[in-house]
Amino acid sequence: MFLHDKKPLHTVKVDGPNPKFAAMLQEQLGGANGELKAAMQYMSQSFRIKDPEIKDMMLDIAAEELSHMEMVSMLITQLNGGELQANQATVGEVQTHVLTGLAPGLINASGHPWTADYVNVTGDLVADLLSDIAAEMRAKVVYEYLYRQIDDKGVRETIDFLLNREEAHNQLFRKALGKIAQTGSSRDFGVTEDSKLYFNLSTPGGQAFDLSHIHPPH
Amino acid sequence: MFLHDKKPLHTVKVDGPNPKFAAMLQEQLGGANGELKAAMQYMSQSFRIKDPEIKDMMLDIAAEELSHMEMVSMLITQLNGGELQANQATVGEVQTHVLTGLAPGLINASGHPWTADYVNVTGDLVADLLSDIAAEMRAKVVYEYLYRQIDDKGVRETIDFLLNREEAHNQLFRKALGKIAQTGSSRDFGVTEDSKLYFNLSTPGGQAFDLSHIHPPH
Amino acid sequence: MFLHDKKPLHTVKVDGPNPKFAAMLQEQLGGANGELKAAMQYMSQSFRIKDPEIKDMMLDIAAEELSHMEMVSMLITQLNGGELQANQATVGEVQTHVLTGLAPGLINASGHPWTADYVNVTGDLVADLLSDIAAEMRAKVVYEYLYRQIDDKGVRETIDFLLNREEAHNQLFRKALGKIAQTGSSRDFGVTEDSKLYFNLSTPGGQAFDLSHIHPPH
Amino acid sequence: MFLHDKKPLHTVKVDGPNPKFAAMLQEQLGGANGELKAAMQYMSQSFRIKDPEIKDMMLDIAAEELSHMEMVSMLITQLNGGELQANQATVGEVQTHVLTGLAPGLINASGHPWTADYVNVTGDLVADLLSDIAAEMRAKVVYEYLYRQIDDKGVRETIDFLLNREEAHNQLFRKALGKIAQTGSSRDFGVTEDSKLYFNLSTPGGQAFDLSHIHPPH
Amino acid sequence: MFLHDKKPLHTVKVDGPNPKFAAMLQEQLGGANGELKAAMQYMSQSFRIKDPEIKDMMLDIAAEELSHMEMVSMLITQLNGGELQANQATVGEVQTHVLTGLAPGLINASGHPWTADYVNVTGDLVADLLSDIAAEMRAKVVYEYLYRQIDDKGVRETIDFLLNREEAHNQLFRKALGKIAQTGSSRDFGVTEDSKLYFNLSTPGGQAFDLSHIHPPH
Amino acid sequence: MFLHDKKPLHTVKVDGPNPKFAAMLQEQLGGANGELKAAMQYMSQSFRIKDPEIKDMMLDIAAEELSHMEMVSMLITQLNGGELQANQATVGEVQTHVLTGLAPGLINASGHPWTADYVNVTGDLVADLLSDIAAEMRAKVVYEYLYRQIDDKGVRETIDFLLNREEAHNQLFRKALGKIAQTGSSRDFGVTEDSKLYFNLSTPGGQAFDLSHIHPPH
Repeated sequence: MFLHDKKPLHTVKVDGPNPKFAAMLQEQLGGANGELKAAMQYMSQSFRIKDPEIKDMMLDIAAEELSHMEMVSMLITQLNGGELQANQATVGEVQTHVLTGLAPGLINASGHPWTADYVNVTGDLVADLLSDIAAEMRAKVVYEYLYRQIDDKGVRETIDFLLNREEAHNQLFRKALGKIAQTGSSRDFGVTEDSKLYFNLSTPGGQAFDLSHIHPPH
Repeated sequence: MFLHDKKPLHTVKVDGPNPKFAAMLQEQLGGANGELKAAMQYMSQSFRIKDPEIKDMMLDIAAEELSHMEMVSMLITQLNGGELQANQATVGEVQTHVLTGLAPGLINASGHPWTADYVNVTGDLVADLLSDIAAEMRAKVVYEYLYRQIDDKGVRETIDFLLNREEAHNQLFRKALGKIAQTGSSRDFGVTEDSKLYFNLSTPGGQAFDLSHIHPPH
Repeated sequence: MFLHDKKPLHTVKVDGPNPKFAAMLQEQLGGANGELKAAMQYMSQSFRIKDPEIKDMMLDIAAEELSHMEMVSMLITQLNGGELQANQATVGEVQTHVLTGLAPGLINASGHPWTADYVNVTGDLVADLLSDIAAEMRAKVVYEYLYRQIDDKGVRETIDFLLNREEAHNQLFRKALGKIAQTGSSRDFGVTEDSKLYFNLSTPGGQAFDLSHIHPPH
Repeated sequence: MFLHDKKPLHTVKVDGPNPKFAAMLQEQLGGANGELKAAMQYMSQSFRIKDPEIKDMMLDIAAEELSHMEMVSMLITQLNGGELQANQATVGEVQTHVLTGLAPGLINASGHPWTADYVNVTGDLVADLLSDIAAEMRAKVVYEYLYRQIDDKGVRETIDFLLNREEAHNQLFRKALGKIAQTGSSRDFGVTEDSKLYFNLSTPGGQAFDLSHIHPPH
Repeated sequence: MFLHDKKPLHTVKVDGPNPKFAAMLQEQLGGANGELKAAMQYMSQSFRIKDPEIKDMMLDIAAEELSHMEMVSMLITQLNGGELQANQATVGEVQTHVLTGLAPGLINASGHPWTADYVNVTGDLVADLLSDIAAEMRAKVVYEYLYRQIDDKGVRETIDFLLNREEAHNQLFRKALGKIAQTGSSRDFGVTEDSKLYFNLSTPGGQAFDLSHIHPPH
Repeated sequence: MFLHDKKPLHTVKVDGPNPKFAAMLQEQLGGANGELKAAMQYMSQSFRIKDPEIKDMMLDIAAEELSHMEMVSMLITQLNGGELQANQATVGEVQTHVLTGLAPGLINASGHPWTADYVNVTGDLVADLLSDIAAEMRAKVVYEYLYRQIDDKGVRETIDFLLNREEAHNQLFRKALGKIAQTGSSRDFGVTEDSKLYFNLSTPGGQAFDLSHIHPPH
């Protein structure tokens, strides 16, 4: 069961309105590497996990990502200020000013709606943890890109907090992967000599391809 | 901030595996009127609400919908059983058997991924509460359709619980609407005589249209 | 059968070109609460309705929404002017200047294509009429947001007309709902005590949750 | 302005219920080459056309496609019968039985929702008419595929009618193309020797590629 | 089998960075008429073609379109320069500056991700070749729109090359269509008198419709 | 530049038609972890990579994934046989039998079209290589799921080959990651104490949450 506490996980307070950066921050609310994606991926993966410790960790992190989602939404709400002004909001999506009445939508920085196509679930714990480690790294990179493009100290403080939490999750997923590394997809499955070939399918410009080694006689 | 409690909101226990019904139930996990949609709609709407009581109610219900989402996922997981068997899973989506390893995906009964296009947020509280009332009614109807097509007593008991909760939310949203009915979009905005016309744009087959009343001379 | 009359439902004449506002207006052509959505929702709902009066009303309004779609397209076409100038079109979508040759596309203000995911059809007349009432209210709110951000008198006159028509449809749907309020999903369906509980799943920050009432012994 | 006549364009009467074929027919309601796509493509293209005859033809055909959409919806409604029975509806989409209450949804045969990504509009009349000719041919092919897989005489009669109408539209579009063939994209635009080369980028298996003619010295 | 040669098909060198035009050019990388769409359409169509000459041509052109995709990506990469600067990138999509680290994404000019809904495959060679001819014409029109809005000589030279190649493909598809024109969907399929009617479903404003010829007595 | 060789990378020959398994195999052609996704991800990532060895490897593997895509398409084409028979194709998508004329479409096993939302590109080489390692692992898992559900020896031989190639790519990506592990996102970026906390946001059922450590006084 999920519960909500009225206090946010971490205080959010921007220096002042900045609708353009609000649009850019939508990427971490409703984008491919954003907080909703993270929450949904870990929650979805948790449902068939049998290891109680890892299952619990997945749901802990999912709850935290929902709390991050709340924090990013607070950032966006504060940055949007109180005026509809599409003419001044010239970066990326504009639905904020014509559709949602300045409320944060579940869209990315260009206005593309969040989709479950972002979520990776395979039911194989090794594959799923690797997907989570990669997802946290991508989320961290996006926060870095956003951090570099804003001077507002309040925004920077919040991004800094969120970015460090992604790093913390990354370490937890890596530790879990270490624990179960010898199960699931990491076991050999019909590994043959085919997995050891390197197919050089490119060639320096203008030279002839020698394809004879690729098509052995049958 | 969101928190997770290891116990579910309500016990979930199916009589036995039923992969076909598992596929059908996906509609209420990742479909247009499902639990994820409900949770995301109320959470998204809450962020700019100033009335503290209504804001709190929105987040209470959002947390409960996330808990419902967990319950529906448990139902699906139990119904899917333990065997990949796409050949037997002839109703609707088949990703469960080739992609997610029997874990519940964020897709609807036909395999269409969840999208934020399902979520209605306008920043106008009257419009948003009306959207919520309609959403709860649709969710209830879908649960009725599912209930009629399953005999499993455990499944029926859970659907019955969920369906009644939608009704309870509906009543809460209606009460909130009553409280604020004279604000936001319910105020008159440039209402003129145009809002009182009925345009009869259809006609009994074979008769002539009299369009003269629609095109007044300018 | 649908028919087309060469005259528009209402004259459309903008004061002058305004490509930025053209992009914003796309929201009501191809967006979540736009005219195409309205037309498709009422048309789709009509097909299984048995009450001849309500079925007829649905198709009347669907035909009018298609006519509104034509009017919004005329507005956009006039506002786009005659020059491809993506460099000046800095608000929202840019396909108008690189893909459609200034023709209005079925996209929203940020360039997201229209999708049938916007359309709510359940086959239950109460649920469908509630969805329609909520849809008309949202459409009205979006027109208000657009109205506030434009000075062009011709555009304002057309938006004013369209907004009032949404209000008129709203009243028709409410009247129809009154007529059939005791059918369909409004009948009690297994309503138990569960529908009367209020689950308080939030708490003032820092306090302890008392969850004992949520998990009764089984 | 669009109008609706209560009589359908052509009588629709199936021999009996057939939910599987209803699902297959969804392809021509909400699929990539279906009637909604056709109606929206011609309507969208019409808005910037200056030639009054061609503009009128576009809107005539758009209105007819909307009327076809109504006919296909009637077919589906009759074929779905009166019982929710997802367990028997083992072909393609299943939303009909869990979401729409047997009403025809704007989805294709597998349940994918209609999207404006299907619609081709460029604002260049030659390109648009070529797109329309290709679209009509594809629509005809899909009707042929459906015709071959059904014995119901009522269904066959309706498909036969619709298929012949696509052929008729095809001829109209070809005639219009003949009329304006020397305008728009058909004019030479920077045509150089590059447009006359044939790049042979494939080779019989195992042979060497001679790429020297592709990379001339600069 | 596909192979990659390190040299591009044609040298790409822009005069200088231009992030706004980079965003506009995304339309031909990940948009509805872009290079990825072309490559995927011809590759997908080729798989069931029996005519060896046409199958070979399809795969030749598919390989060339992949090479064009590489060229457009090089253009975008050079135009994006080396600085994240969402505040200066005010035209269309902004994911380039917050998500992809200036790498070209598979999105269109407004940030909508590429989708296979753009791809037309029917398995009928006449319909498929007509789709290809129309697709090449649309691609050419989009390149013309882009060409008109850029002064950079390096960009213009590349667009000029690509545009001419579309024209060359167009001629190849037309020639193939001539070769097989009497097969597949071009054969008469149940053509009746219905295909020869013209339904005039529009009327000059204010006049009465005479529908009597449309509803013959049954 | 890409080139096409008429011979496939590896011979493909199924024992006999099996339309149901053809639908299941669509997952690896047009699904979230399929061959098109892999090809597009590596190609897109390659464009801004400066390390010539890694760039070359990315494009080698992209070319091989396109060749795998060709092999999977051949499998599907052979499995679909020569008859449209939607009534017998009761697993997953049905567009094959009503839309594509038995040609393999760029859709997944349930008929959802391929989308670039599957592709992960961040411009940060560490994040991108981690995404690739996770992607290869997921692809391998899906091939295992498919392998287990088919007896056809020809199909099994091809899947076995493809699965082993994913493993080979995985090793290449891991080696590349080892080479550049100290660049890009792996460098410390504002790592503070926040990255070392573990937030325990879950609790055993029925116990009270102690939130005092989460909300330190400010």
